Amino acid sequence: MSHNTFGHLFRVTTWGESHGPALGCVVDGCPPGIRFTLKDIQDELDKRKPGQSRFVTQRREPDEVKVLSGVILDDDGETLISTGTPISMMIENVDQRSKDYGDIARQYRPGHADYTYDVKYGLRDHRGGGRSSARETAARVAAGAIARKIVPGLVVRGALVSMGTRSIDRANWDWDFIGSAENPFFTPDASSVQPFADYLDGIRKSGSSVGAVIEVVAEGVPAGLGAPIYGKLDQDIASNLMSINAVKGVEIGNGFEAARITGEENADEMRMGNDGQPIFLSNHAGGILGGISTGQAVIARFAVKPTSSILTPRKSIDKDGKEVDVMTKGRHDPCVGIRAVPIGEAMVACAIADHYLRHRGQTGR
Amino acid sequence: MSHNTFGHLFRVTTWGESHGPALGCVVDGCPPGIRFTLKDIQDELDKRKPGQSRFVTQRREPDEVKVLSGVILDDDGETLISTGTPISMMIENVDQRSKDYGDIARQYRPGHADYTYDVKYGLRDHRGGGRSSARETAARVAAGAIARKIVPGLVVRGALVSMGTRSIDRANWDWDFIGSAENPFFTPDASSVQPFADYLDGIRKSGSSVGAVIEVVAEGVPAGLGAPIYGKLDQDIASNLMSINAVKGVEIGNGFEAARITGEENADEMRMGNDGQPIFLSNHAGGILGGISTGQAVIARFAVKPTSSILTPRKSIDKDGKEVDVMTKGRHDPCVGIRAVPIGEAMVACAIADHYLRHRGQTGR
Amino acid sequence: MSHNTFGHLFRVTTWGESHGPALGCVVDGCPPGIRFTLKDIQDELDKRKPGQSRFVTQRREPDEVKVLSGVILDDDGETLISTGTPISMMIENVDQRSKDYGDIARQYRPGHADYTYDVKYGLRDHRGGGRSSARETAARVAAGAIARKIVPGLVVRGALVSMGTRSIDRANWDWDFIGSAENPFFTPDASSVQPFADYLDGIRKSGSSVGAVIEVVAEGVPAGLGAPIYGKLDQDIASNLMSINAVKGVEIGNGFEAARITGEENADEMRMGNDGQPIFLSNHAGGILGGISTGQAVIARFAVKPTSSILTPRKSIDKDGKEVDVMTKGRHDPCVGIRAVPIGEAMVACAIADHYLRHRGQTGR
Amino acid sequence: MSHNTFGHLFRVTTWGESHGPALGCVVDGCPPGIRFTLKDIQDELDKRKPGQSRFVTQRREPDEVKVLSGVILDDDGETLISTGTPISMMIENVDQRSKDYGDIARQYRPGHADYTYDVKYGLRDHRGGGRSSARETAARVAAGAIARKIVPGLVVRGALVSMGTRSIDRANWDWDFIGSAENPFFTPDASSVQPFADYLDGIRKSGSSVGAVIEVVAEGVPAGLGAPIYGKLDQDIASNLMSINAVKGVEIGNGFEAARITGEENADEMRMGNDGQPIFLSNHAGGILGGISTGQAVIARFAVKPTSSILTPRKSIDKDGKEVDVMTKGRHDPCVGIRAVPIGEAMVACAIADHYLRHRGQTGR
Repeated sequence: MSHNTFGHLFRVTTWGESHGPALGCVVDGCPPGIRFTLKDIQDELDKRKPGQSRFVTQRREPDEVKVLSGVILDDDGETLISTGTPISMMIENVDQRSKDYGDIARQYRPGHADYTYDVKYGLRDHRGGGRSSARETAARVAAGAIARKIVPGLVVRGALVSMGTRSIDRANWDWDFIGSAENPFFTPDASSVQPFADYLDGIRKSGSSVGAVIEVVAEGVPAGLGAPIYGKLDQDIASNLMSINAVKGVEIGNGFEAARITGEENADEMRMGNDGQPIFLSNHAGGILGGISTGQAVIARFAVKPTSSILTPRKSIDKDGKEVDVMTKGRHDPCVGIRAVPIGEAMVACAIADHYLRHRGQTGR
Repeated sequence: MSHNTFGHLFRVTTWGESHGPALGCVVDGCPPGIRFTLKDIQDELDKRKPGQSRFVTQRREPDEVKVLSGVILDDDGETLISTGTPISMMIENVDQRSKDYGDIARQYRPGHADYTYDVKYGLRDHRGGGRSSARETAARVAAGAIARKIVPGLVVRGALVSMGTRSIDRANWDWDFIGSAENPFFTPDASSVQPFADYLDGIRKSGSSVGAVIEVVAEGVPAGLGAPIYGKLDQDIASNLMSINAVKGVEIGNGFEAARITGEENADEMRMGNDGQPIFLSNHAGGILGGISTGQAVIARFAVKPTSSILTPRKSIDKDGKEVDVMTKGRHDPCVGIRAVPIGEAMVACAIADHYLRHRGQTGR
Repeated sequence: MSHNTFGHLFRVTTWGESHGPALGCVVDGCPPGIRFTLKDIQDELDKRKPGQSRFVTQRREPDEVKVLSGVILDDDGETLISTGTPISMMIENVDQRSKDYGDIARQYRPGHADYTYDVKYGLRDHRGGGRSSARETAARVAAGAIARKIVPGLVVRGALVSMGTRSIDRANWDWDFIGSAENPFFTPDASSVQPFADYLDGIRKSGSSVGAVIEVVAEGVPAGLGAPIYGKLDQDIASNLMSINAVKGVEIGNGFEAARITGEENADEMRMGNDGQPIFLSNHAGGILGGISTGQAVIARFAVKPTSSILTPRKSIDKDGKEVDVMTKGRHDPCVGIRAVPIGEAMVACAIADHYLRHRGQTGR
Repeated sequence: MSHNTFGHLFRVTTWGESHGPALGCVVDGCPPGIRFTLKDIQDELDKRKPGQSRFVTQRREPDEVKVLSGVILDDDGETLISTGTPISMMIENVDQRSKDYGDIARQYRPGHADYTYDVKYGLRDHRGGGRSSARETAARVAAGAIARKIVPGLVVRGALVSMGTRSIDRANWDWDFIGSAENPFFTPDASSVQPFADYLDGIRKSGSSVGAVIEVVAEGVPAGLGAPIYGKLDQDIASNLMSINAVKGVEIGNGFEAARITGEENADEMRMGNDGQPIFLSNHAGGILGGISTGQAVIARFAVKPTSSILTPRKSIDKDGKEVDVMTKGRHDPCVGIRAVPIGEAMVACAIADHYLRHRGQTGR
């Protein structure tokens, strides 16, 4: 079962609400002897931290992670070494202005989970969206930081490739630019920053919001990960990405474009490389064939809808069935897709780490 | 774990290869007292049966299902009643021309799982694709036929909405036309049949293949199904659809389009209906908010790539690392997306049935 | 979830009723390249086959197993090689005298699952106990035959150590005697055969039944299998054994005796062996410490209650709440514990194979 | 998978080591609207708290639980109401005298998990047993306190029925005596206190330890819980109990005694009660038939071995393979079985709550 857990051999259980004392996760199944530092985790968390530019929510959260179990400290006093037992991580909630949400305690914000939580459970923690808040994703990012360490040579990177009606120019793709200080958008195209900024300023000032498409590329994925038929690597990546709040679509490799082209165009031909290793002449498959990794880069994209918390009043109802106009006043992201980049990376990394362990278990390799 | 099983309370395990004696599935967790006939299952299987038009593989398989356990026969001598114990179903393979595959026993067909199975397992059953064959999907359709019976009032229907570069006209949408005898494409648009036929004849005669996009709509889904955070209904639908062979993308509701529009446009406003029940004024969300069903129609789309078995030679290698040109001679579908329609329906039905039982378990409703 | 499935990486799903057309199992997660013959499986099945002596049920079932998927045939024409995909096995029911059960279709046999199945499901397949029949265990034995092949060097053997009030003399323990033709009891003590036979003849002739205790010893279990805290090897062995029909108790190593002795007596001291490997000076722990195997023999015992199908009338009620006297007339085992020996072996072998793969997955060793 | 998680619909994941900053659990799948107070949980924790008499470890831990998520506070300012989202609970470790363990950092205590953890993981947190410490069980007790609230009318109570070679007199059984202040043993027999105290004082003063047998009785279990074949209620109770540290045997109802008696003796006859409901005339089955609850009391017993931490030197080896004599100096329980009583109750309560939700999911009742 998986209400709040994902993964099989590398398993992550998250907990916590937007306005409770803390949130966190338990990472179960991490192999023993994996070495990482608090800074490794904190660096990932800092990427998704709110309040870092005017384009994301102004909530101020230090998002400082504590590791409560599952590790011993190396003699260097800094490196943590996993012991094979569950790694519990906790992040305290600091900046919880509950009063912001008073107005909408009983109203259903269109596009939000307010209505469905109430229908399902009969009650909900409305403050900041409760469990459905994007704050839950901090726990995923912390888990992903550990997942990255498990597969030797694995590099997982994400980029925002479109925002609303604006897209990057793929000819300018530069991974190094993504971490740059003048890049608040995780765009790999330096020339897109100004247009994105102008566009999003307009959206933000009008109290609106807009969606985005994120691409995650995992390099160093060994061939052979994944399992037929209901344990396909792409299936688990799709599941992991679709579990992120506000995600409405997932593609692997060519994705929906594959439905428009012919078998000749879509086939990735093979030759032998100079080193005697098979090489693919293209990667329309996104690194996965029959649910199993080919050894090429694994490529996934996901679509994030515009945040539903907008300043324009929308028609809705409240808990008593009274018709109301709803307008969100809290601090929110004009484009939640931006901060989804490190989350998408984390979810892909976790899927790959899980399949790495599963493959090793079944095949011994 | 889930190599060959999906679902949690409604669980399906499939088994079988293209050229073994049989294939089948075990449906575990079906509630007791569910009533269905062999014909109910057979009718679904007949929809995906090969050899029904010149546009699908000419392999002739009766696909006759046997129910081996988990039911008792009602006094009417026809209705099967589930007992709550596992329902085992088996379909014998009849038309297995193994010789067709002799040439490619050691070659890797580009776009196929040949290479990845060999890399993963070190050996494979190459005949007809072995386990990665589309024949495995017959078992899914049989399981889906039972899933449909579990949720009272549930209706799950699928339609092909585009094939290669051709699309239907949504203004002509007519569910009733899909089952019509003159409709070999599962298209809901009668005016699209001739253009699709002409287009696909061209593809077929040139030895090529083409992809398709399928839309599945589930009506009668109670509000409240799904679970935060890693048991979202849309997540499990995405996982189920992505597990179908050749699927490369999945969308819920607006899908990737949601990334291009604003929060105002994407929000589904609510009012109270005349019957005192909440109604939504639109359904951009595809019937799911925060991973939980709203009570509206659940809408999912998936992209099927062109089949990789084409008559045009493609560059590849064989098991010994020798470079070869590969051309598939077996009987195949010029557009596997066509027969994916009933499979997609089955996978969506299974996800909904599973969440129906899970919801009932956790909440008692 | 696990209505009808057990194991995690080595997963077994069984299906089938006593009086349906067949029963079987799907073994998922078997590593690729495992070699076995049909005879390997059949030999295990033959051990638990009914009708082999006057001390077990006279139902005549050939219990001939068919392997329907997941293997390819080696060039020797005899050896099956697992491909890593699910192995489906089926055993047809042949000797189903349904009429024997007519009288008790609506009556609840004391000690049987008749009442609880009806209470749970509202209906049941009463013929021969339906799903709760001991025939289901044939599928377990078939799965166990494959499990045995997965861990190199693993030897799992079982023995009946007591029957009713009679016990073996452990000083006479001889594993080789168990397979002997003049040993219908799986006893390791040749001197016990005659006393057991006399005792059970008395039980049988009086229309009564009696319980038994079985001991299973697994040698060649690598140290390190098992996982804290809820994946302990002994926990999974206990779970597997307790899932066998009629089992009411499970012990590991010293078992309940451990509760009666002191820490000094119970401790297994360690020394270094001549080969530089650690050795234990005793094995009170039954080869498992903290849920993880020590490398010593794993020792488990389980108690099987007397079969509830007896010729002496017992007070009961029927489906309508009418008070009745129930007497079973079908063919049954006076001591079901006898045939539980190969079943217990199979369940222990499956648990060990599963943990072998899980350990390899998590640790790479 | 289940390294550190148990349950299916009511799922508990525990984390934490003896000498880390904290330990805790995440309870996933708790239905919404369950009401409880912090005191409800704390009362259970206080039962197993160390340091309460001279017969248990002198480690002083307040074991104060914090609830970090998954609840909202009722208007009474005291009652917590579950929201259906994961309930995270944390207990800080306070009294961690790490220095006590310095000597044995590299030595393997016979009977402990020291050796197996090192063999499995290659490294371990040796302080206080690390993850294998009995402190982990505090998290189980906290989870069990919530499980008790889920099944209406459920009462789960445990009692120590024997300690070493001493047993209670069942004729004196009095549940009310168990909570009495002059009862440090959880014995239901007031006349056993003095003999137990004298016996255990002798054990304690000689630096030895002794085992115990605990009986857990669950009343108010609805008929119909449990699922064939690998989701039997008794199987999951056995698994849960065997997962407790130091447990070496589990029995349901008559347990091993069932193997010694006849079918007539073991059968629980049925009649109709005056209220028109079925009644059983005995309960040899321990409230479970065919893996499904009968509606009678569910009865389980488990055997706890003597703690391996004793003052008498035992032969062992260290990490380098050097032969050593090991003597534990830390604070430990002369009879860990005493504090196992509330833990056993919690594990049984969790199994029943899980099956209650599963049954409701599959059958709607």
